[in-house]
Amino acid sequence: MEEQLHYSIRTDLALEAQEMNVKDDPSSSDRDGVEVHENKKNDITITYVTVDEAGAERIGKKPGHYVTLESLAIRKQDKELQENLAETMSVQLRKLMEACGIKDMDRGLIVGLGNHNVTPDALGPLVTEDVYVTSHLFELHPETVAEGWRPVSAVTPGVMGVTGIETSNMVHGIIKEIKPDFVLVIDALASRSINRINATIQLSDTGIHPGSGVGNKRKEISRETYGIPVISIGVPTVVDAVTITSDTIDYVLKHFGREWREKDRPSNALSPALNPFERKTLTEEDHPDDEQSQAVMGMFGQLAAHEKKQLIKEVLTPLGHNLMVTPKEVDSFIKDMACVIAAGINGALHSGVEDGRLESY
Amino acid sequence: MEEQLHYSIRTDLALEAQEMNVKDDPSSSDRDGVEVHENKKNDITITYVTVDEAGAERIGKKPGHYVTLESLAIRKQDKELQENLAETMSVQLRKLMEACGIKDMDRGLIVGLGNHNVTPDALGPLVTEDVYVTSHLFELHPETVAEGWRPVSAVTPGVMGVTGIETSNMVHGIIKEIKPDFVLVIDALASRSINRINATIQLSDTGIHPGSGVGNKRKEISRETYGIPVISIGVPTVVDAVTITSDTIDYVLKHFGREWREKDRPSNALSPALNPFERKTLTEEDHPDDEQSQAVMGMFGQLAAHEKKQLIKEVLTPLGHNLMVTPKEVDSFIKDMACVIAAGINGALHSGVEDGRLESY
Amino acid sequence: MEEQLHYSIRTDLALEAQEMNVKDDPSSSDRDGVEVHENKKNDITITYVTVDEAGAERIGKKPGHYVTLESLAIRKQDKELQENLAETMSVQLRKLMEACGIKDMDRGLIVGLGNHNVTPDALGPLVTEDVYVTSHLFELHPETVAEGWRPVSAVTPGVMGVTGIETSNMVHGIIKEIKPDFVLVIDALASRSINRINATIQLSDTGIHPGSGVGNKRKEISRETYGIPVISIGVPTVVDAVTITSDTIDYVLKHFGREWREKDRPSNALSPALNPFERKTLTEEDHPDDEQSQAVMGMFGQLAAHEKKQLIKEVLTPLGHNLMVTPKEVDSFIKDMACVIAAGINGALHSGVEDGRLESY
Amino acid sequence: MEEQLHYSIRTDLALEAQEMNVKDDPSSSDRDGVEVHENKKNDITITYVTVDEAGAERIGKKPGHYVTLESLAIRKQDKELQENLAETMSVQLRKLMEACGIKDMDRGLIVGLGNHNVTPDALGPLVTEDVYVTSHLFELHPETVAEGWRPVSAVTPGVMGVTGIETSNMVHGIIKEIKPDFVLVIDALASRSINRINATIQLSDTGIHPGSGVGNKRKEISRETYGIPVISIGVPTVVDAVTITSDTIDYVLKHFGREWREKDRPSNALSPALNPFERKTLTEEDHPDDEQSQAVMGMFGQLAAHEKKQLIKEVLTPLGHNLMVTPKEVDSFIKDMACVIAAGINGALHSGVEDGRLESY
Repeated sequence: MEEQLHYSIRTDLALEAQEMNVKDDPSSSDRDGVEVHENKKNDITITYVTVDEAGAERIGKKPGHYVTLESLAIRKQDKELQENLAETMSVQLRKLMEACGIKDMDRGLIVGLGNHNVTPDALGPLVTEDVYVTSHLFELHPETVAEGWRPVSAVTPGVMGVTGIETSNMVHGIIKEIKPDFVLVIDALASRSINRINATIQLSDTGIHPGSGVGNKRKEISRETYGIPVISIGVPTVVDAVTITSDTIDYVLKHFGREWREKDRPSNALSPALNPFERKTLTEEDHPDDEQSQAVMGMFGQLAAHEKKQLIKEVLTPLGHNLMVTPKEVDSFIKDMACVIAAGINGALHSGVEDGRLESY
Repeated sequence: MEEQLHYSIRTDLALEAQEMNVKDDPSSSDRDGVEVHENKKNDITITYVTVDEAGAERIGKKPGHYVTLESLAIRKQDKELQENLAETMSVQLRKLMEACGIKDMDRGLIVGLGNHNVTPDALGPLVTEDVYVTSHLFELHPETVAEGWRPVSAVTPGVMGVTGIETSNMVHGIIKEIKPDFVLVIDALASRSINRINATIQLSDTGIHPGSGVGNKRKEISRETYGIPVISIGVPTVVDAVTITSDTIDYVLKHFGREWREKDRPSNALSPALNPFERKTLTEEDHPDDEQSQAVMGMFGQLAAHEKKQLIKEVLTPLGHNLMVTPKEVDSFIKDMACVIAAGINGALHSGVEDGRLESY
Repeated sequence: MEEQLHYSIRTDLALEAQEMNVKDDPSSSDRDGVEVHENKKNDITITYVTVDEAGAERIGKKPGHYVTLESLAIRKQDKELQENLAETMSVQLRKLMEACGIKDMDRGLIVGLGNHNVTPDALGPLVTEDVYVTSHLFELHPETVAEGWRPVSAVTPGVMGVTGIETSNMVHGIIKEIKPDFVLVIDALASRSINRINATIQLSDTGIHPGSGVGNKRKEISRETYGIPVISIGVPTVVDAVTITSDTIDYVLKHFGREWREKDRPSNALSPALNPFERKTLTEEDHPDDEQSQAVMGMFGQLAAHEKKQLIKEVLTPLGHNLMVTPKEVDSFIKDMACVIAAGINGALHSGVEDGRLESY
Repeated sequence: MEEQLHYSIRTDLALEAQEMNVKDDPSSSDRDGVEVHENKKNDITITYVTVDEAGAERIGKKPGHYVTLESLAIRKQDKELQENLAETMSVQLRKLMEACGIKDMDRGLIVGLGNHNVTPDALGPLVTEDVYVTSHLFELHPETVAEGWRPVSAVTPGVMGVTGIETSNMVHGIIKEIKPDFVLVIDALASRSINRINATIQLSDTGIHPGSGVGNKRKEISRETYGIPVISIGVPTVVDAVTITSDTIDYVLKHFGREWREKDRPSNALSPALNPFERKTLTEEDHPDDEQSQAVMGMFGQLAAHEKKQLIKEVLTPLGHNLMVTPKEVDSFIKDMACVIAAGINGALHSGVEDGRLESY
């Protein structure tokens, strides 16, 4: 999370990249190089996005597998939902590890990116403190290690502003010395959508660019760089004022779109348009048509999503008002999310650990 | 900050209450019962708002004196500006104390409202830890106390969600037992404007309603309740999505308004419209007229400020998206602000303490 | 824990007061006014000490009931033992509450004494954060409260060095305002024995003198002061250099005593003398006789316990070396102990809470 | 501080190693291979110990230079003394750096060993947060760097129990990647003397063995391993019960020795024997002779220092009572010490930073 957003191009979530593409250019077929499957269970929406070379170019995400878990477990501070989320994450992470060819006793290195003194950026370091670390036991007291555990180490490289060292260099030095069989990287992300803050976990086998390394192959932490599987775990924890505004305007437009249509509809039930996780099916039906948009929001309402964001950004940035913000409850949200992710990792890495057990660390 | 905002009626800042009133009802004379003076020095804007009974009814704030300091010292993380701000606060707080009839050796009680485990709400408790506390020395070792100090105690009553006790009751019990000559109350506020977050300090002699006590005379901490002067110090530290959106839309409208007018103007210099602290002079000139607003933002652009907020709120709230948010850098912002306010209080309360000295507490 | 120890007279634990008395004056019958029962279960030693007026004068503790739980659950960082300890504490606390006449729906106030910024003194404030607080729900939303819960509030008055207010005054003000039916006070104590640090919990119905209030009736928090039951929960978390040395010298003497006797004994098994929780039965058998003591430790070895302490204190104090110390692992010990005590309280106060459940707070 | 003490052999401070040797074997000439100079100024005792190959074998410390600063600035919580200490440290560190051939613009890497979640072991990580870090500015924005600064980076590798990786391996990987010109390593030490806790800073050019690497050349962080200067900065922050007892017994013996002699002496002034920093001159004069020791402490009193410690250790360890402890005020002591050391480093590394300035970080 060292860098801010670059509007017109980038999102850290493949799911969003794919949606943006479809929305802004509805004529394009969303099946060209990008496969999407969705699955719901226990209040969790799981979306599988597979991107090939063609899709990569189209949506601007690296080819590979992306699994997104969406749940309000953290924001609702609901312990039971959090256990479900950790359990589901264990299952999905295990599948992804298997798909990457990671074996039962392969040695893992967990890398918690971020700054433990900046709460919304402390997710990585907090997860690192909560995962089970066993490498030293395997090395020094192998006789004490029971069945069902694998060797795992965990590091928190810090951020460049505090260490003076580019994070990717630091991680590089550690990986070369430790020589793990695979790497898990955890990072807090900037979100492009207010409803994903602390409500989404993305697993991916495509690696990660810590901080400013974007577009610089050498700075990447990925299978290409190290020749070992690298799985990244990302959670959006902050959002900027531009995104909040743009999202809200969209909700207002949808609201008016819905109101107009409802005049002709018999049912007055709560529209699915208002459920933020019902995104895909809504686009065509609920969004007001051009004429309506113009009536409600004038020329502004007719802009495409990225144009709207670009315009808002151009207005806010010179004023110093494009703040990156995080929910007021950031302290408990981040602590709970770290707990869920650590439990998700522990369950996936060690067959001896029960899935979905949130320890009181 | 225990309660959320009530849009159509309330703001914690008299400055905002006064502006909202003028804006929404331009026909009203802003001089009826509300006097406003402004003063700038050292990058700090000081606004004095005096409200009498008539004004109180009109703008919905209690009669009394309100002094607002506006500065970007914290958000720019500029140590020197922070020292200036603390110094200015000492001067203004001392004046307000004198106006309230507080004497040199009067015994003060500092009350830090808020929750020290929720960073954006931890301002009060942090200030309480940083102020000089001397009451026990006066009582137990009076011979050790030098000239230039007065007896001061400090308490952090906590919040109802953690104590189970209404904050005003807790404070009431402590004041009745301690019997101070005057009270200073520090609280984090919800802002109605994105540009005031961690950039505004309001001093007032009208007391405070901690938490949900609004409108309930018995729950107030004020001169009326205790018969002693109560000075409140409030800082906006959070803002909600509705406000961010509404503010941003206003900036966008102003931007277009400026663009249209600039076509006819020779100068192309950075418009004062874009300086957020130049508010009052802009309203009429820079805001687009009705026709422009409609072109840019349709019917939405023509709504009055509070109508816009009300509408946005009606859309966001059922979605669970009207998050209260705080800047990503909340940890250091709150720590620095607490440091400034404690220094401001220390300088004002004790003639032996130099104004504007930020100790490393 | 605001005050340091006063050697010749005082210990906060009735158990120790009773033992000291017996040891230093073996001719006295330990049954005069002091009844002692001991009970062991699940690695926990429970000692019941009942003191009447005569005993009070003899051992210097107020008349009343004292229940001491001894366990190495915290120091061994053993989760299961910690659950046992919490469960046992719930049972014992419930009994003591019943004996005090506290009824099922009586309203409780929990007072966490201490300073949350000084880790070994942060036990009270941490417990306060971890207990279930329900008073406000009973008052504001009574319909939401299920069976099995009672109204409970919790406060952390802070310490005089930080507030400037004598702690007992602060608590007094709050109790008078809140008017609870009974009070639970939690405090960290100074220990007189190295083996009790973070290994002992004392429950008592005799109230407490926070800080320097010793001997001042008005400053006491007790049934006499308020007319309602006051139960105190104390845990030794620090020890001074004098005590460490004195204890260690005793262990060395015992060691030699054992060695001498073992020459005549067939068995070479680990002597019960070395089990620190086997105290009472050892005194006569294991301690070396006078001649042995003199040989091993010279004239020093022949001093009575309190004379030894007094002498060591006289040597160390002028050097500034009578430090109060706490185990290196203080951060996790205090956190775990707070968790156990909060669970113990929650189980005892609310019939709807299962005993011995350590929540991940 | 990952390892505990090994009594008969080791201390982390050369000063102590040298003294122990002299004391236990007074026939040896303390000038064989070990040179000692002492210097006092501003309440700070500076001791220079230079060890050559012969001395290394004799006292068990690596050949090289050791500079020890002794001051009660932290324990007295005296801001002015702390500034003096930081200033003195800057001067001494600069000298040692020059002696090592480090040049003005050489690139430094600061390594803060220890565990930021265990307060007495958090010194290294805290210093790392408080030093000025500039490497990234030199690399990315060289035009912004003023005269008087050098490139510095800083890392906190964590401890093996948390990372699963031997600390020396982690540091090794980072150094190989970053390729600094010199290294500064900060670590919290176990003390062999109660009066050195948080009162001593040792600078040395002999490198360090983090954690369990003792005696293993490959695990060392030193000039021999990396071919670049490695300067270590060590502060004793914990002590064990054995040491406290042994020290105290020594103070008691000295006390009696003094008392006996004073019977024959006219003056009754406070004996220098009681000043802990007057160590060397006392040994012969103040310590009671053998006959006195036996009278006071029996056979125990006649044991050599390391025999006494060994015996005490043998008694305490099986009881689980040889706790490592730290002063009750550990939170503020460690914070203040980190502040002093960071200021000492900042002043020494950057000619543009004034010596002895304790910033409010």
